[in-house]
Amino acid sequence: MTNIPRVQLLLTGDELMSGDTVDSNSALIARELSGLGLTPSRRVTLGDERQALAQEMTTLSEDADVLIVNGGLGPTIDDLTAEVLAEVADSGLEEHPDALDHLERWCKKRNLVLNAANLKQAMLPKGCTLIPNPVGSAVGFSLVVNGCLVLCTPGVPGELRAMLPEILERLREIYGITLQKDVLRLQTFGLGESTAQQLLMDEHPDWPSEVVLSFRAGAPQLELKLSITRAKDKGLRDTCRQWMESLFGDHIIGEGDTRIAEAVIDLARKAGVTLSCAESCTGGMIASMLTQISGASDVFPGGFVTYSNALKQSVLGVPASTLESDGAVSEATVKAMVAGALDASGADLAVAVSGIAGPGGGSEEKPLGTVWLAWGDRERVETVCLCWPVERVLFQTMVAAAALDVLRRRLAGIDKQSSYFDQRRLR
Amino acid sequence: MTNIPRVQLLLTGDELMSGDTVDSNSALIARELSGLGLTPSRRVTLGDERQALAQEMTTLSEDADVLIVNGGLGPTIDDLTAEVLAEVADSGLEEHPDALDHLERWCKKRNLVLNAANLKQAMLPKGCTLIPNPVGSAVGFSLVVNGCLVLCTPGVPGELRAMLPEILERLREIYGITLQKDVLRLQTFGLGESTAQQLLMDEHPDWPSEVVLSFRAGAPQLELKLSITRAKDKGLRDTCRQWMESLFGDHIIGEGDTRIAEAVIDLARKAGVTLSCAESCTGGMIASMLTQISGASDVFPGGFVTYSNALKQSVLGVPASTLESDGAVSEATVKAMVAGALDASGADLAVAVSGIAGPGGGSEEKPLGTVWLAWGDRERVETVCLCWPVERVLFQTMVAAAALDVLRRRLAGIDKQSSYFDQRRLR
Repeated sequence: MTNIPRVQLLLTGDELMSGDTVDSNSALIARELSGLGLTPSRRVTLGDERQALAQEMTTLSEDADVLIVNGGLGPTIDDLTAEVLAEVADSGLEEHPDALDHLERWCKKRNLVLNAANLKQAMLPKGCTLIPNPVGSAVGFSLVVNGCLVLCTPGVPGELRAMLPEILERLREIYGITLQKDVLRLQTFGLGESTAQQLLMDEHPDWPSEVVLSFRAGAPQLELKLSITRAKDKGLRDTCRQWMESLFGDHIIGEGDTRIAEAVIDLARKAGVTLSCAESCTGGMIASMLTQISGASDVFPGGFVTYSNALKQSVLGVPASTLESDGAVSEATVKAMVAGALDASGADLAVAVSGIAGPGGGSEEKPLGTVWLAWGDRERVETVCLCWPVERVLFQTMVAAAALDVLRRRLAGIDKQSSYFDQRRLR
Repeated sequence: MTNIPRVQLLLTGDELMSGDTVDSNSALIARELSGLGLTPSRRVTLGDERQALAQEMTTLSEDADVLIVNGGLGPTIDDLTAEVLAEVADSGLEEHPDALDHLERWCKKRNLVLNAANLKQAMLPKGCTLIPNPVGSAVGFSLVVNGCLVLCTPGVPGELRAMLPEILERLREIYGITLQKDVLRLQTFGLGESTAQQLLMDEHPDWPSEVVLSFRAGAPQLELKLSITRAKDKGLRDTCRQWMESLFGDHIIGEGDTRIAEAVIDLARKAGVTLSCAESCTGGMIASMLTQISGASDVFPGGFVTYSNALKQSVLGVPASTLESDGAVSEATVKAMVAGALDASGADLAVAVSGIAGPGGGSEEKPLGTVWLAWGDRERVETVCLCWPVERVLFQTMVAAAALDVLRRRLAGIDKQSSYFDQRRLR
């Protein structure tokens, strides 16, 4: 029988409190722990202050089964972890022979002289167990305090990362942990968090308690994450997947971290179709999203950023008369841009966008955030006019993603236009 | 007499505990608070768990003068902040008319129907004061609980950012805080943190103790931040600025949040020069960086993403013989691309890049990360070959920034080539 320990984190460092450093270590630790089905229940971050650290270590060790301390193992006087833990454990410090040996070898290898500051890193709480550091001078160590296993790790991300496999192995052994949870992450586009929540509550009022659903909104995509407690019913994951499919099917881009450009490139590759784009208001972002994906060159010969009317004419052959009569932000212009992009690139399928990104511009007829999209091949071109009155870069991001999404739907044979079009359609 | 409040932070979100999201909000809050001379003394991060949140809010509000809560204001059932705070304050929830009004206007502006999930965002603790959200649906709010000012803010970074000025203003008023520190932030490109630190220590061993220098590395730029304790010597800021100029002058892009594309566009506008770009490995990122800046259309008619050799020929007129003899990643190709971009766009100045972004590709002669840059006008074209063997998107980001930086230097009349070229020059 597995005994799931209650894990908490304590991070220390003035640079974390001042905002000079963004803490990426906790996310690293949490992601590694999730492989064991463990999620830290609490995380406290403090500056390098002796009294506050001692108090927090006492509280946390009394509450948790496992406490991972990160930071404060360096050679300088503001690195307090070993000292404070020794105080909390009432164990005192002593020079640890293996830690000293590690430091001596580490310095020798780098032709450094072991100085007093370095030696401090060998002074550890009495009775602690070392955690080797294969890449840095600071060793980690663990000690049981107040019945809690306290694991002390270095703040340098590369050193922490190198130490984590050993830590996971120890936890696995001590607690006899096997994988506890199935996680299913689905990437969607065009779905609002509240809409998704509402739809789900309406359609599945008897949602199983073993499945925790959460959302992660990251423009332009929304992630649906299902954490499924391993149950006797092995089909629960598949059942949930099917529910998601039937509710949000056409919005689902893919599993895991799939980005929308990745889905488009995969679909195009499978269909043997090449792609191009003609961008005005997105200014290169569609092309950039595509080419951030490794292997984009298989399906993307290139694209065109025609910001000025002159380039829309000379590069894409948009008639001057169209620009004059309908304007740059119009159905006729984006249709001509698609035709021009297909011609100039030789690609099979293209998308074009033209809109008003702001903050300036816009009129009563074409308010700020108005954008025309056109997409298609040499046979059939579709268009839509949307309005996204948001900040400039967010507007570009959402429009670029929408442009990729219309390609995705065309390539996947999804006839239905996205529901977000209904909400944002201007005409 | 100013009364410095004790500030603590409480962050909430399962995605923060699972490691799915790296918390950048605390750093944002801390940096803003530092302008008032405030540093949070403690930060606790929890998942979306009612009981744990209630307990922590109670403890923190008893201990702190100001508690900033971040996250949990969304429309979904796992967004618990208002509910839990109402419980802790024993105030109950009520529909806040101004919050409802905000939601109605927000939905109307976006042609959305206000649903039950949205309405939840108007249910706030009785007696709270709204903090307006100019960019999102979730309003913030504040309430005094256990003698502590609790300020609740949204987890979406853009919405938090938009709310912070109002929060700072309130703290300034309540606590009679005057600005404690002058902060000078300089954006640089091509400068390494350790190089900058070393140079500074060598040149200014008697650095004044009133000035704290810190670095914030954010690809592609490095921020140098000087926090200057308000001194009688009003000239200290200017003196420091001059020291920075003389040491790192040509690397300095601008003050505050200036991005490199912004500096390029400003310089081009002042010089009356128009710009274009021809991109292979960066795949649209140079154009996208430029067009993310409002007003880019003043100087940027457009650019070309020529990913395939066929498009390099047909769009930019790169001779087939050049591509055959020298290859796509070569000096001859990028020079021809610059000429082609100038021709096709009619711009005055252009930059072209072609390189091996990976993860595939590369050879002994042209290893992964190799990139050729060419830039110039119809009179004079310069080139350089660099090697940046890093992950694909970081490679594209650094190369796109380098392409903008060579334009910046050309426009600013800086003859010196950047020192980072020396470190990364391939031939």
